[in-house]
Amino acid sequence: MLQTIDLDAKLGKEEYKQARDALDLHLSQLQRDIRNARIPVIVVFEGWEASGIGTAISRLLGPLDPRGYKSHTFGKPGQEAAFRPPMWRFWVSLPAAGDIAVYDGSWYRHILDDKKKSRELDYERYRIFERQLIDDGAVIVKFWLHVGKEEQARRFRKLEKSKALAWKVTKKDWRRNQHYDAYMAIADEMIAETSTAQAPWTSVPAHDNRYATVRIAETFVAAMENALAAKKRPPAPMRKESRHLDSPLDSADMSVEIDRATYERQLPKLQKKLAHLEAMIYVPRIPVVIVYEGWDASGKGGNIKRLVASLDHRGFEVTPVGAPEGEEKTHHYLWRFWRNVPKAGHITIFDRSWYGRVLVERVENFARPDEWQRAYAEINEFEHELASFGTVLVKFWINISKDEQLRRFKARQEIAYKQWKITPDDWRNRDKWDAYHKAVSDMIQKTSTPCAPWTIVEGNCKLHARLKTLSTVINAISTAVK
Amino acid sequence: MLQTIDLDAKLGKEEYKQARDALDLHLSQLQRDIRNARIPVIVVFEGWEASGIGTAISRLLGPLDPRGYKSHTFGKPGQEAAFRPPMWRFWVSLPAAGDIAVYDGSWYRHILDDKKKSRELDYERYRIFERQLIDDGAVIVKFWLHVGKEEQARRFRKLEKSKALAWKVTKKDWRRNQHYDAYMAIADEMIAETSTAQAPWTSVPAHDNRYATVRIAETFVAAMENALAAKKRPPAPMRKESRHLDSPLDSADMSVEIDRATYERQLPKLQKKLAHLEAMIYVPRIPVVIVYEGWDASGKGGNIKRLVASLDHRGFEVTPVGAPEGEEKTHHYLWRFWRNVPKAGHITIFDRSWYGRVLVERVENFARPDEWQRAYAEINEFEHELASFGTVLVKFWINISKDEQLRRFKARQEIAYKQWKITPDDWRNRDKWDAYHKAVSDMIQKTSTPCAPWTIVEGNCKLHARLKTLSTVINAISTAVK
Repeated sequence: MLQTIDLDAKLGKEEYKQARDALDLHLSQLQRDIRNARIPVIVVFEGWEASGIGTAISRLLGPLDPRGYKSHTFGKPGQEAAFRPPMWRFWVSLPAAGDIAVYDGSWYRHILDDKKKSRELDYERYRIFERQLIDDGAVIVKFWLHVGKEEQARRFRKLEKSKALAWKVTKKDWRRNQHYDAYMAIADEMIAETSTAQAPWTSVPAHDNRYATVRIAETFVAAMENALAAKKRPPAPMRKESRHLDSPLDSADMSVEIDRATYERQLPKLQKKLAHLEAMIYVPRIPVVIVYEGWDASGKGGNIKRLVASLDHRGFEVTPVGAPEGEEKTHHYLWRFWRNVPKAGHITIFDRSWYGRVLVERVENFARPDEWQRAYAEINEFEHELASFGTVLVKFWINISKDEQLRRFKARQEIAYKQWKITPDDWRNRDKWDAYHKAVSDMIQKTSTPCAPWTIVEGNCKLHARLKTLSTVINAISTAVK
Repeated sequence: MLQTIDLDAKLGKEEYKQARDALDLHLSQLQRDIRNARIPVIVVFEGWEASGIGTAISRLLGPLDPRGYKSHTFGKPGQEAAFRPPMWRFWVSLPAAGDIAVYDGSWYRHILDDKKKSRELDYERYRIFERQLIDDGAVIVKFWLHVGKEEQARRFRKLEKSKALAWKVTKKDWRRNQHYDAYMAIADEMIAETSTAQAPWTSVPAHDNRYATVRIAETFVAAMENALAAKKRPPAPMRKESRHLDSPLDSADMSVEIDRATYERQLPKLQKKLAHLEAMIYVPRIPVVIVYEGWDASGKGGNIKRLVASLDHRGFEVTPVGAPEGEEKTHHYLWRFWRNVPKAGHITIFDRSWYGRVLVERVENFARPDEWQRAYAEINEFEHELASFGTVLVKFWINISKDEQLRRFKARQEIAYKQWKITPDDWRNRDKWDAYHKAVSDMIQKTSTPCAPWTIVEGNCKLHARLKTLSTVINAISTAVK
C-alpha cells in the first residue's frame, strides 16, 4: 500500500557517497556480465509526475556503458500504434539479448492516464507479456516513484519558475494533483494486480534523491544477480510427452479432387468476392492474418499467388518467413512477428510463421524441449491478443501425402524452370517425415482455438486446395464484416 | 509533354491476350533472375486520381511471386515522419537486394499535393536519392498514368455509385479535377525535372486498361533486362588515387595535456551546460547528430560516457555501429543509418558510423574501390540532407599516436577488468596503421563541409579529449539554438 510508505526516508551525504561508489563499480561489472550471458533487461519506471523519474534514470544509467542501453518514453499511442494491437509498440521496442531497455512511460502509463476504463483486461495482458519475456530469459525490474501531494505541488511550482523547464508542467498535471487520492487508489490497485513473483514492483519513496538513487540501484543489482544465477541453473525438466493415438491429419481425405473446368469456373468468382471483402474491411479497420504452413512442395507459393491475384495491392502484404537473422536472433522469437502484424484494415499473409517454433525448431532441436513445449501456450496468447484487437485469424496446414511429395520433388528435378524450387534441405526434411508428422499433429491439437482455428487443406489436388483456402478466407472475413 | 500523349491508344482483346501471355511468363522468370542477381527494384507509380494505378499495379504484380514484392502507399507524413528529414520514410521502406518495392504514392506525391511550394529543392533531393540507389545497383522504373479531365470526372461518378468504393472519391479529388490544367503543368515540370538517363519517367495513356497494362509490363521488362545486363559489366574503372602530401592529422598537437584538477573543475560545468542545451532544443525541435570515429583504444567509450552523464535519458540515444548484419547487409549501406536518424528535438550519438564505408570497408576491401570512392559524395549528400532539415552535425576523430595505442593495448591485457576490451582484431588493425592513416586523412579532407565539419580531438590525454568534445558539442548546439 502506497499510503504506508515512509516518505521521510533519507540518506546522509557521506553515507550516500560510500554506497554509491560501491554500487557504481558493481553496476558496470554487472552490465558486462549481463551482456556476456545475453540476458535482455527491462526496467520500468512509473510514478507521480515530478517524482524525479528522469533524474533517477540518469543516475542509474550513469555508471553504465551508454552503448548497451536505450531508454524509451511512451505516451499516448500515435497513428502507427493506434492501428495495431495495444502491445505492439512495446514488443517492437524490446531490448536485444544483453542490452538494457529503460521505460519511462511503459505499458502501465495508460492505466493512470485513463482512469475511467475497466482495467482488468489490461492487467491480464501485462502479466502475460511479462511472463513471456521472463520465460525467454529476460529480467524485468519495475519501480514506482512515490511523492506526496504537497511535495508534488511544490515541485511543480519550482519547475514553472525555470525558463528551460517550465514547459514540463501542464494543466493536466495540476488537475491530477488535485485528484491525488483517486490516482493513488488506482496506482495501489495496479501495483497489487501486476506484482508477480518474477516481476515485482518496488515502491520507492522519492522525497530524498539520495535515498531513492541508492534504493533503486540496490534493487537493480539484486535483480541482475538473481538473473545471472538463474541463468546457470539447468532449464526446467521436460514434461513427459503425451502420446497421440490419433492425429488430426488422419481424418483428412487425401483423395479429394476437382476437375480443371470446375476450377476455372469457380476461381474468378471467389477471387472477385475476396477483392470485394478486402475493400469492405478498410473502413471498419479490421485486420486480417492468414498463416500458411504445410509440407515442402505442398504448393503454398502457388496457392498464395491465387489468393492475392485480384486483391488491391494497397491492402495486403505477403511476408515470407525463413530462419531468423541478425536482430531477430537476439530477440524473443515472437518479436519479429509482432513487427509484422498487419495495420488495422489490412491483410498480412505469412508464408510460414511463428509455428516454426513447434515445427522446425522442435524437430531440428533449435529450441530446447522446455522452450517449444511452452510455445503452444505462448502462441495461443499471442493470437488471442491479436483476436481481441479484432483481427481475423485464418491458419492453413496444406497437407499432402508422402507419395505425392516424392512425385513433386522428382518433377521439380526434371523440369528445367522448376529446378530452383528444390534444395538438399527438402530431401533432408523428407527423411524426418515422421518427426514432422508428430509435430504437426501436436501443433494442430494444441493451437486450434475458437479465435484462431486451423484448417487442414487437402493438398494432393492443388486446384481443390486453392479453392478451399479462398473460400475459407472469404467465410472468415464475411463473418467479421457482418 | 503530357498534352501530346495519344489518349486514344487502345489494344484489342486478342492482341492483348497474346502480348500478356508472353509477358507473364517472361516476368516470372525475370523476378527469379533479379533475385539471384540481388538487384533491388523500385517501381514508382504516379498519375491522376482514378487513372487506374491500383489496377495497373495488380496486373503488373499478378504474374510475380508475392513473397518477393511489397507495395507501399505514402500519403501525408504522419507524426513519426514529420519529426525526421523528408526522405526518411522512403529510405527506411527500401527493398532488400533481390526484392521489388512498388510505390503507389512515392516521394513525388508531395509535389502534386502541395502545389504552392517551391519545388526546385525537392527535385534536386529526388535526383540525388535515386542516383544513390542506382549507383548501389538498384533499378528504378517510374510511371505516370495519364487520363483526360473528362474521363477522370466520368470515373469519379462511376466510383461514387458503388457501395464498396464510394469512399475513394473525396471533395479534394473533385477540386483537383476542376483545376486539371494547373496540375498538369506541375506534372509536366516534375517529369521534365526528374527524368534522368538512368531513372526516366514513362508516361502511359491510361484510358484503355489493356493498352496501359501491356505498355507498363513491357517497360518494366526492358528495365529489368537492362539491369541484368549491366550487372554483368565490370564496375567503372578506379579513379587514380590522389596523393596527399599533407594529412590533416599531422597538424594535431599530440602533446596537449591537462591536469586532473582542471579537469574535475571544468567537467561538471560543461556537463551542466550541455544538459541545459538538451532541454533547449526540445521545443524548437532541433535534432542533433554526434559522430565518434577514432583509433582503437582512443577512448571513445569513456568519452561518450562523460558526454551523456548529465543528460536527460529521454533526450538522447547512443547507437553503437558494428559490422552490418541480417537486413543491413541486403540494403544500401546508408539504409541502417537512415533508420537511426534522431527524431527532431533529440540527440543521437553514433559510436562509429557511416564513415566505416571509407575506413574499415576501404582498408579491408569489403567495398570495391569505385564504391568507397563514390561514398565521399554520398556521405556529403546524406549529411546535407540532415543539415537542411535543421540537424546539428558534430563529427569527432579521436586521434592518438601509435605509441600511445601500444601502451593502452598492453595496459588492457594486464589489468584484469579491462581485458574484455582487447581482441585479436585490435592487433590486426594496428598492423594496418598506415593504410588507416591514409583513409582517415582522405576522409577528413573530403567530408569536412560547412554544415558538417570534422573536429580532430587530440586524444593522448583522455581528460583533454573529454573536455574538448563536450565544449565542441556545446558550441555547435548553442549556435543552432540562437
